Order: sequence, then C-alpha cells, then structure tokens
Amino acid sequence: MTETIIGVIGPGKANPQEIEQARELGGLIAREGWTLLTGGRDTGVMEAASEGAHKAGGLVVGILPTADKTGASDFIDIPICTGMGSARNNINVLTSDIVIAIGQGAGTTSEIMLALKAKKPLILLTPSPKLLDFIDELPYPKPKIINAPKEIVPAVQPFL
Amino acid sequence: MTETIIGVIGPGKANPQEIEQARELGGLIAREGWTLLTGGRDTGVMEAASEGAHKAGGLVVGILPTADKTGASDFIDIPICTGMGSARNNINVLTSDIVIAIGQGAGTTSEIMLALKAKKPLILLTPSPKLLDFIDELPYPKPKIINAPKEIVPAVQPFL
Amino acid sequence: MTETIIGVIGPGKANPQEIEQARELGGLIAREGWTLLTGGRDTGVMEAASEGAHKAGGLVVGILPTADKTGASDFIDIPICTGMGSARNNINVLTSDIVIAIGQGAGTTSEIMLALKAKKPLILLTPSPKLLDFIDELPYPKPKIINAPKEIVPAVQPFL
Amino acid sequence: MTETIIGVIGPGKANPQEIEQARELGGLIAREGWTLLTGGRDTGVMEAASEGAHKAGGLVVGILPTADKTGASDFIDIPICTGMGSARNNINVLTSDIVIAIGQGAGTTSEIMLALKAKKPLILLTPSPKLLDFIDELPYPKPKIINAPKEIVPAVQPFL
Repeated sequence: MTETIIGVIGPGKANPQEIEQARELGGLIAREGWTLLTGGRDTGVMEAASEGAHKAGGLVVGILPTADKTGASDFIDIPICTGMGSARNNINVLTSDIVIAIGQGAGTTSEIMLALKAKKPLILLTPSPKLLDFIDELPYPKPKIINAPKEIVPAVQPFL
Repeated sequence: MTETIIGVIGPGKANPQEIEQARELGGLIAREGWTLLTGGRDTGVMEAASEGAHKAGGLVVGILPTADKTGASDFIDIPICTGMGSARNNINVLTSDIVIAIGQGAGTTSEIMLALKAKKPLILLTPSPKLLDFIDELPYPKPKIINAPKEIVPAVQPFL
Repeated sequence: MTETIIGVIGPGKANPQEIEQARELGGLIAREGWTLLTGGRDTGVMEAASEGAHKAGGLVVGILPTADKTGASDFIDIPICTGMGSARNNINVLTSDIVIAIGQGAGTTSEIMLALKAKKPLILLTPSPKLLDFIDELPYPKPKIINAPKEIVPAVQPFL
Repeated sequence: MTETIIGVIGPGKANPQEIEQARELGGLIAREGWTLLTGGRDTGVMEAASEGAHKAGGLVVGILPTADKTGASDFIDIPICTGMGSARNNINVLTSDIVIAIGQGAGTTSEIMLALKAKKPLILLTPSPKLLDFIDELPYPKPKIINAPKEIVPAVQPFL
C-alpha cells in the first residue's frame, strides 16, 4: 500500500553538473511512479531533484531541518518539519527504501554513512574516487555505483 | 504548491466511538483534498483515521516512532520512519498545518500541549470537560471545540 | 556507578512562588548527592532549580533545546545541546530517574504526559487541582503529590 | 561555569590498538579536569575511553541511542537516554566543545562529518590515510591530526 520512496541526497551547494544530474534523476524517479524524498531545502541537489520530480508529475517529500517551511523548496508536496537540524539526516535514511547520493559534502557523507550503518540499499552517482576508496575500507557491503542518471531505474529495480 | 496537511492525533487505545469518529474524520479530510497526517501506527485513532482517508482516496502520511515500517498502518501512503519514539510527537505537530485531537491519552495530550506551545491551530473533537478546564488555565489561545466530525470542514477553513 | 538523576521540570515563565520552590528543591536535591536535570534554560523553574543545586554544591545537567549554549543557565555544569527544540522534552523524561514537576505550562504538561507514558516515577509539587482532575481520567498510575519542597527527599527515596 | 566537554568518538567494534588508545585518551582528558563525552555504549572506543576517564577520577557523560540504560557502559556517570538511535550522533557533536575521533566506522565517520558541518574543533588520532584524502576534498577547514594519545593536551588547549 505504501509508496516506494527513493531518497536523493546531495549537498545544498552543488556544481552545475550535479544540479543537472539531480534534476534528471528526479524526473526519472517520478516517471517510474516512485515518490522522491529529499532533505527539503530550496538549494542544490535537494531543489533540483525536487524540481525534476515535480515537473514530471511526481510526489515529493522533503524532510526539513527546520521547525517550519521557511527555506523549503517550492517543489515539495509534503514538507516534514522536524525542527531537528542535521539530526534529521537519520530520518532521511530510515524513511527511504533506497538511498541515492549525488555529489559530496559533509552532510551528504554523514547520510551515506548512516545508510551503510542502517543497511539501506545505497547507490552512488559518479562518486568521488577518494570517497569510494575510503568506503572500501569500511566493513559494510559495497554501494552500487552508477555513472549517469539514466542508469537509475535498472539499479533500483532489484531492490524493490 | 505544498499540500494542506491536517494532523489527526489520538490514542492507540481508543474506544469504539472514537474509532468511528476518527474514520469519519479521515474520510472528510480526504474528500476536501487535504492530506492526512497521523502518528502512523496500526491501532486506535491513527489506524481508523488513516483507513477513512485512504478509502476516500486521500493521501496519508504517518510519522512513525519506529526506525522501520513495523507496526505501521496498512493505510499509510508515506511512512516517515523517525526511530525517535515519542520525540516524534513534536514532528507531528510542527508538520501539521492544523492539529485535530480525538480522545485522550498521555501521548495525545503531550501533542495537544506541543501544539499550544507551537501556536498551531488546534481543534478538539468532543474533548473531556476536565481537559478543557485544565487548558483554560494555560496562558494560550483557546482551542476550537467541535462536537461531531462533520463540523471539521467549516472549522478548518478559516485557518487555510 | 551512574549518578541518581532527578529531573525538575517547570515553565520558563514562572511566578515568584514557583521560583522560590524550584530554588529550594534544587538545593535539597544537591544536598542528597543527587544530580539535577533541567531543561537547561536561563529562565523560570529551570534557572531557579539550577541555581539552588549549584549553590548547594550539586551537579546540574541541562538538556537544551538549542544547538549551542545560547540561552543556557549559568548554573548548568553539563549543557547538552540537542538542537531539537521541544522534541528534547522526551530526553528530559527518559534521562531522569524520577521526574518532579513544579508549576504548569504547555511544555511542562507535555513532559508530565511523556513521563506517564514512559512509566517514570512522577512527583507533582502543589499541582493545579484541574490538572490533577484531568490526570485522574488517564489510564496511568497516579503521580505522587507533595505540598512543599521539603517533602521531596522522603518522596524520592522509595524509588531509589 | 560549565565544564569543558571533550567528545571522544569511535566505533563500538574497535581493534586492540584503538581500545588501548581510547583508554589512555580518557585518562588524559580526566587528569586535565575535562569532562569526557562518549556515545555511551559498553563496547569499543566508547567503553575504553569511559573506563580510562573513570579510573582517573573524571566525569563521564554518555549520550545513549537507547531509551533506557540498557547497554550503557558501567563507567558512565551521566547517561543521557535519547531513544533516538543514530540521530543522537548530532547531539554528541553539538554538545562537545572539541571532538576527537579514534578509529573508523560508519557511525564514527557520520559524526566526523557532522562535526565538520557544525564547525566544531576536530582532532583525529592516527586517522586512515584514505579518510584524510577524502576529507581534503571537502570545503571545510582541515581537522588537526595527532599520532599518539599523549599529544591530546597540547592539541586541545588552543581551542579552550
């Protein structure tokens, strides 16, 4: 009965390529009928993925760090106001059936680590080789790597 | 762009009248095109409101105390897994545009109190007179009282 | 090995009698060698209880709603920065071996309710009769009532 | 008035060298009169640092993921029961005046990332070169590296 929820995590400060990838990823997720989850803010990967999903007619859930909708993306349908700051990163991970990371940053990496710890299916889109080298040292199953947004659908399907 | 989110709070252990009221309330909320938010569990007011909204074709968000979907209502579309126990009560309140309480219990009353503190529009359906007497002592605006589920639509509209 | 932690909860806006009671209670707790826990802020019952315990040489833990020490009482030894707003109320309750409430307010009452739900030993100092009437309706063991701070030591001891 | 709180973070599954380093670090922190903060559990770096500080007469605060003291280290003086699982990692970071990491793991790395994001002074004891390479890519000030527990006191002092 519940929706399939795909979390797309990534930094609020993202480069143009990451923004473009996030927007495309959001659209692909929506067209599969999956619900998109983001960190809810109106910048970077969060904003772009939300825009892509919204414009493709998808449902978008944003888990906000704030206690109200200030700073939320306009493309969020369901803004969850946690009032918990970065402690909400754990909710992002626990609520997603599958976690996809684009780009890197301290907050994003904290979520990648929480996803490993929670044993969530984890997909990394064009990750930094140095991040991958580090993850290889950790005693967890390796995340799946994809090299373009269009690979997302076949990457997600085995987990559904 | 965001959905109007109506939180219905009430105990997991509810009596038959409260269950019936919750189910009716859920249906009325869905038929207005509003999104229902509950505490997400598969018992009592949470379950009945979710069922009512779902069967009327509405969207249902459940803010779960648990870290996964164990114990979630089957009528939830968007289960938010907080892993925070009763600390999630504050998220229920902050995320709802309007909070409606049915029945009473310690958890429900904690949410009523958090709604007062957060200055959320608060509607009580057939509340206990003793709860009302106590709330009258607190230095907050009085909640709105309704006596039947069907009064919910006109009670909510002034806040939208 | 762990300290006995006595939580004193009460409003940030308190009247002079409540302030005086909180200060006395803090001192009595400290003189027993118990650790005081408060909501950590520099106003009302939190500030007064912390001051009383500190001046009697006790250890004071403050569970702050904020992400840093801004607004913390100067009488706190261990400020816990949660960054979670009122969701931290649940931590106040879970961390206290025994919860004592002075005065009333929405936040304080939310903590009383969470203490009932968590089955924590709960002591109310000169509570409002209307609050008591309402609590009597709830399906929980009755809290213990005391009428003066000096009754706290014999009230706490059976729970240790 | 408040204590200086030094957070020592590290995995629950640690190797013998990390255990030994954590125990020594705990002792050194205690002998400076600083309060030790850990994640509170009775295994790995958390347990060893707590033991070291306790046996040197220090005060130990444990921020537990659990809702009660089950699984807490016996060397904790002040167990903070959050009931929040890994979301408590953010409280570890926000509450520490300075964060020191030993060893690596997904949870520990999530805390390192949250410390970078919160702009907390961060010290890494003999970190993995691959973790350092990755951190170098992130747009944050570099953490301080130390190579033995005995370097902790001069490393911490500039931040006090």
